[in-house]
Amino acid sequence: MTKGALALLIHGGTDNWSPQRWKARFDDVCGDRPVVLLPDAGLDPADVHYAAVWKPAPGELAGFPNLRVIFNLGAGVDALMADKTLPQVPLVRVAVDDLTARMTEYVVLHVLMHHRQELYLRESQRVKRWAPKYQWPAAAINVGILGLGTLGLDAADVLKRLGFQVAGWSRSEKQADGIESFHGAAQLDAFLARTDILVSLLPLTPDTTGILDRKMFTKLRRSSPLGAPVMINAGRGRLQNEPDILSCLDDGTLGAVSLDVFGREPLPADSPFWTHPKVVLTPHNAADTDADAISRYVAEQIATFEAGGALRNLVDRVRGY
Amino acid sequence: MTKGALALLIHGGTDNWSPQRWKARFDDVCGDRPVVLLPDAGLDPADVHYAAVWKPAPGELAGFPNLRVIFNLGAGVDALMADKTLPQVPLVRVAVDDLTARMTEYVVLHVLMHHRQELYLRESQRVKRWAPKYQWPAAAINVGILGLGTLGLDAADVLKRLGFQVAGWSRSEKQADGIESFHGAAQLDAFLARTDILVSLLPLTPDTTGILDRKMFTKLRRSSPLGAPVMINAGRGRLQNEPDILSCLDDGTLGAVSLDVFGREPLPADSPFWTHPKVVLTPHNAADTDADAISRYVAEQIATFEAGGALRNLVDRVRGY
Repeated sequence: MTKGALALLIHGGTDNWSPQRWKARFDDVCGDRPVVLLPDAGLDPADVHYAAVWKPAPGELAGFPNLRVIFNLGAGVDALMADKTLPQVPLVRVAVDDLTARMTEYVVLHVLMHHRQELYLRESQRVKRWAPKYQWPAAAINVGILGLGTLGLDAADVLKRLGFQVAGWSRSEKQADGIESFHGAAQLDAFLARTDILVSLLPLTPDTTGILDRKMFTKLRRSSPLGAPVMINAGRGRLQNEPDILSCLDDGTLGAVSLDVFGREPLPADSPFWTHPKVVLTPHNAADTDADAISRYVAEQIATFEAGGALRNLVDRVRGY
Repeated sequence: MTKGALALLIHGGTDNWSPQRWKARFDDVCGDRPVVLLPDAGLDPADVHYAAVWKPAPGELAGFPNLRVIFNLGAGVDALMADKTLPQVPLVRVAVDDLTARMTEYVVLHVLMHHRQELYLRESQRVKRWAPKYQWPAAAINVGILGLGTLGLDAADVLKRLGFQVAGWSRSEKQADGIESFHGAAQLDAFLARTDILVSLLPLTPDTTGILDRKMFTKLRRSSPLGAPVMINAGRGRLQNEPDILSCLDDGTLGAVSLDVFGREPLPADSPFWTHPKVVLTPHNAADTDADAISRYVAEQIATFEAGGALRNLVDRVRGY
């Protein structure tokens, strides 16, 4: 009897995400297990035991009667949660150290850029102005991380090491050394009231859709040493209310933003975000996916599962992440 | 008998460096010890026991017969070393945690900017181009720190935590966990040959003047994943050969540079560094001085010294730092 097949179902993404590239990586690590790219007209759906997917269309996973586990190839599972026909099998999220390290690079870079007045300094260079402004030490700046999962905790750890005053907010209570923890709806306002630089690493769920809005931005610390508070979104575009961000930048409610994600990607050429002087924009590359690390992670989880062990990083379908 | 006076002798610098501002800070922390601003026509030079100085002119400190200790208010003592008439008393360098933390902020920010392709991404934003390039993980990038003193070791520690491969070079042998250490002239080439991002935190001495030149840049790793190696100078402007930097940027020997310091400051308006597309320029603000922290540091050292204790962070006049 041959091993049950691993089916790959991959949509969207850049060249880095070509299905053939993923298949080559999975072939390398799956030993004698067949790896098939969907759609595959010659495939008997009953042979598929595992699926590794990125942004499948609703219904695409419904036709595999012997599916045992679904692996999502990125951190965010919001595309899968939108599929009401998704088979009721365990759903595993990617949590590889490589992805965490990349997100921490992005968060630390963008917190430091705003803290160290990079928008002002690049404009100074452009106009040939040698005019240092007073630079607050990191210890004077309160960073607040929305979402204290694996990614948020790791970024918080480095920011703390750099001297920032770091707090985090999460839905359920979390503890971390040297990080002030807030949780639940009741503590959100207190968390926002002490925050100068807000970093969003929230999962996208019905509860968090559009949460980064004017109502939230007006609650940030008004006496920020930075002049006005800053928002960094490296989570999902649909967390943010984009008209609110623009109007809050224009009326001074926000001093600046870094945005890696948008409601529509690629960002249309007529979006005002491209040219806004207070926007630092990146093309959804905060945390690239490393196909080597992720294919190994999936193969290891399958081996553990077939040996009777527990799957790690399971998605809770009720809370949606 | 009144306590011997502390004389302040401060030249140059920005508004942040106004002598009156420094005097107010020292008055706060010196108790009943007189604090005088030089020049002071009514002062008996014999009353001065301590001097706290920034960029004194040669000879300005020669006329105080009872001088016991000179405190330099910044990290670099090159201006003092150039004074052949400097009294032969202990010379103390500033080493406060605040200065170290600020320099680490700067170094981590600029390493991450180059590692994360910020020059490319800002240009992409300017031309409305949504085109992520492959992003190497930090683990693929070798950072090399020239100068493993207090500042270099602290920056190395955070860079290592971010996942970079960190090595350091220093004149004499240094050890640090997780950091590959090179030392002395004999190991400099091996250090350069493995380095993708070179960070200069060297003191300025006759041996290091002009050391950042084409000869050094051509020895950096030619197979850098960044395309071409990067140089960051947050030490002293006179460490660098400025025509060599420009020609190495233009012929591809260097991919980009971050420069906080220049041979002539403020940088003249006709300098080509202002407009060069591969230059990230900051106006010598990598590590602002915190007058509160430094005045406390000097007052504490004087108290220790008068109680018979040892002065810390003494400058070695033979090696010049």
